[in-house]
Amino acid sequence: MKFKIKQNKLSRALNTVSRVAAGSRTTLPILNNVLIFAEKNKVSLSTTNLDMAITEYLPERPEEEGKITVPARLLAEFVGNLPRDEEITIENKGTKVTISAGKYQSVINGADAEDFPTLPEINEKKAVKFTINVDDFKNGINKVIVASSNDLTRPALTGVYFNTFNNGLYVAATDGYRLAEKKLIEKVKDEVAVIIPANSLQEIMRSIYDDVDEIEILFDETQAIFRLGEIEIMSTLIDGSFPDYRQLIPKDNEIVLNLKKDEVLRITKLAALFAKEVGGSIVCEAKKNKFLISSVANEYGENSSEIETEVENSGKVTLNSKFLIDALNAVEEEEIKISFSSRITPVVVENQKSKDYVHIIMPLKS
Amino acid sequence: MKFKIKQNKLSRALNTVSRVAAGSRTTLPILNNVLIFAEKNKVSLSTTNLDMAITEYLPERPEEEGKITVPARLLAEFVGNLPRDEEITIENKGTKVTISAGKYQSVINGADAEDFPTLPEINEKKAVKFTINVDDFKNGINKVIVASSNDLTRPALTGVYFNTFNNGLYVAATDGYRLAEKKLIEKVKDEVAVIIPANSLQEIMRSIYDDVDEIEILFDETQAIFRLGEIEIMSTLIDGSFPDYRQLIPKDNEIVLNLKKDEVLRITKLAALFAKEVGGSIVCEAKKNKFLISSVANEYGENSSEIETEVENSGKVTLNSKFLIDALNAVEEEEIKISFSSRITPVVVENQKSKDYVHIIMPLKS
Repeated sequence: MKFKIKQNKLSRALNTVSRVAAGSRTTLPILNNVLIFAEKNKVSLSTTNLDMAITEYLPERPEEEGKITVPARLLAEFVGNLPRDEEITIENKGTKVTISAGKYQSVINGADAEDFPTLPEINEKKAVKFTINVDDFKNGINKVIVASSNDLTRPALTGVYFNTFNNGLYVAATDGYRLAEKKLIEKVKDEVAVIIPANSLQEIMRSIYDDVDEIEILFDETQAIFRLGEIEIMSTLIDGSFPDYRQLIPKDNEIVLNLKKDEVLRITKLAALFAKEVGGSIVCEAKKNKFLISSVANEYGENSSEIETEVENSGKVTLNSKFLIDALNAVEEEEIKISFSSRITPVVVENQKSKDYVHIIMPLKS
Repeated sequence: MKFKIKQNKLSRALNTVSRVAAGSRTTLPILNNVLIFAEKNKVSLSTTNLDMAITEYLPERPEEEGKITVPARLLAEFVGNLPRDEEITIENKGTKVTISAGKYQSVINGADAEDFPTLPEINEKKAVKFTINVDDFKNGINKVIVASSNDLTRPALTGVYFNTFNNGLYVAATDGYRLAEKKLIEKVKDEVAVIIPANSLQEIMRSIYDDVDEIEILFDETQAIFRLGEIEIMSTLIDGSFPDYRQLIPKDNEIVLNLKKDEVLRITKLAALFAKEVGGSIVCEAKKNKFLISSVANEYGENSSEIETEVENSGKVTLNSKFLIDALNAVEEEEIKISFSSRITPVVVENQKSKDYVHIIMPLKS
């Protein structure tokens, strides 16, 4: 194998793919490596941690075909320290890989490509395929991923649920205490209902270069593939059933508050400072055309703030301040709507105008 | 006690002083608090962790004099979340401290000011005093502090040594493996030889506001006071004797290399990547008008780079790559000088032109 490539191109690609390499904790050391595959008209760099795999295609025509694996981070750091715009030559003799650029040269000990796990492929004809604008994708995932769980004993909640409903494509996530749902695409032809690991989605979002406009997503029974320009990312799906969440979203709450997001965020943060002792719990109350947030008096002191707003019914609910702050950061518009009915039914946080996003929070016992 | 103050002023001061407050690990909880002292013409905010103390003076004329302490970080975060430019009123009734700003209000549980440790004072007449430009101070400390030690069993090495020599004021630090010295002031009248904890200096550098031009430093037998505009920082001195370091700096090394800093830094970093297995050790060699840096071949592979330069004698020395990188980052000029004599005598890294900074590194056994 032998090919030449500009430092900045190679460095960018290596930084991207080396993040997926397993890191030193793996019991399978070859997962630390990047597979360099020089084919007829292109060179590809691939890494995998078995849950996901990433490949970046470089449009270089190699002088000699071949494949080899080398420690991904070492190669990424080495190339990253070479002068920008220098032309780099990579070639191997057996498992010895020589990287040279002008007066700089190194030999890295690689490992045979045959020992690298086979990268999964997808049957394009059988797969369900969606194409989505990059910004819509990022925005949609960011607004729901915050509600996903870290609890590995409930694997279905550690992912984001891609599902179709009434011809629309939705993403949703919940950790059992709160739930967020965003419509990604208004109208799609195919149906889908799969859970993608939140970790994979985070990695996908980090791998989107500025010059990519669209993402192509392909699903089959066991995996999803995300195509972002020259990058292809495969993720396993989470095998589990996502809660039937639509029935959990209250349709008509009794108490409806139209509020400015910044004001609510500020008084929530102020109350949260005093709520550290009590697990972050704060009391939200609607009464006499006011919306009040207060912390329970405790060792530190107490805090109460209010916002004037028109409101018909009155009532109280106790919330985890962190969850309310997350929800407020996720709604987009300046003018938002918070609604609830009782101390034990979910609080709904949403935009006043657009109807494509909803975030609900279960109250705490009080 | 009662006074009014603008949010941005109070927030900046609280952020600065609350960093020194001891944090939750202290066994003396009042060290978490900030002492608010409203005197006739001014209000002061003070915190201490017993090793150092910081006071910021606010030129507000209080409505009522008095003093109280409150949890520093809670107050800083609360005030930080209030709207910018809002006028804040702080007053106490016993240990209950009320902070109000427009429609926002909180009561924080404070503690009696009598329980707060007495802040140290300095006898100005007996103290040695220096005044120094802020940029020179920051630059000087940054260039030597990197060589200080974290090893608490050798307390004298965990500080920066302020000392006068031939009428100049110098700072120096060493961890026993390397040493850095910088001249701070060309000519001073008084003599001094004290060790300031590196931690205190780091805190002092973080506390310098952009609008401060000069620092006044006062030393007495047991402490130092740094005055930065409205801020006064007291630090204890380290009780110990600093090594007689001047004799350790080689005067004339046999091998003298004039090099470009960027080039040396690059090849050092490249070699360091391959040296992780061997504790970062790299080999520097001068021969036949070349300067070479290489890593010892090991599990990862091997690396060698060279720079062409005029050099008379030839020789080799093994260094810790981290120390060489630190030294290269500390020299200022683009054109630098590296010199050494043998495998066991110190390597000197310095600027080619200015003579006010020197960094020496002890070789590793090879």
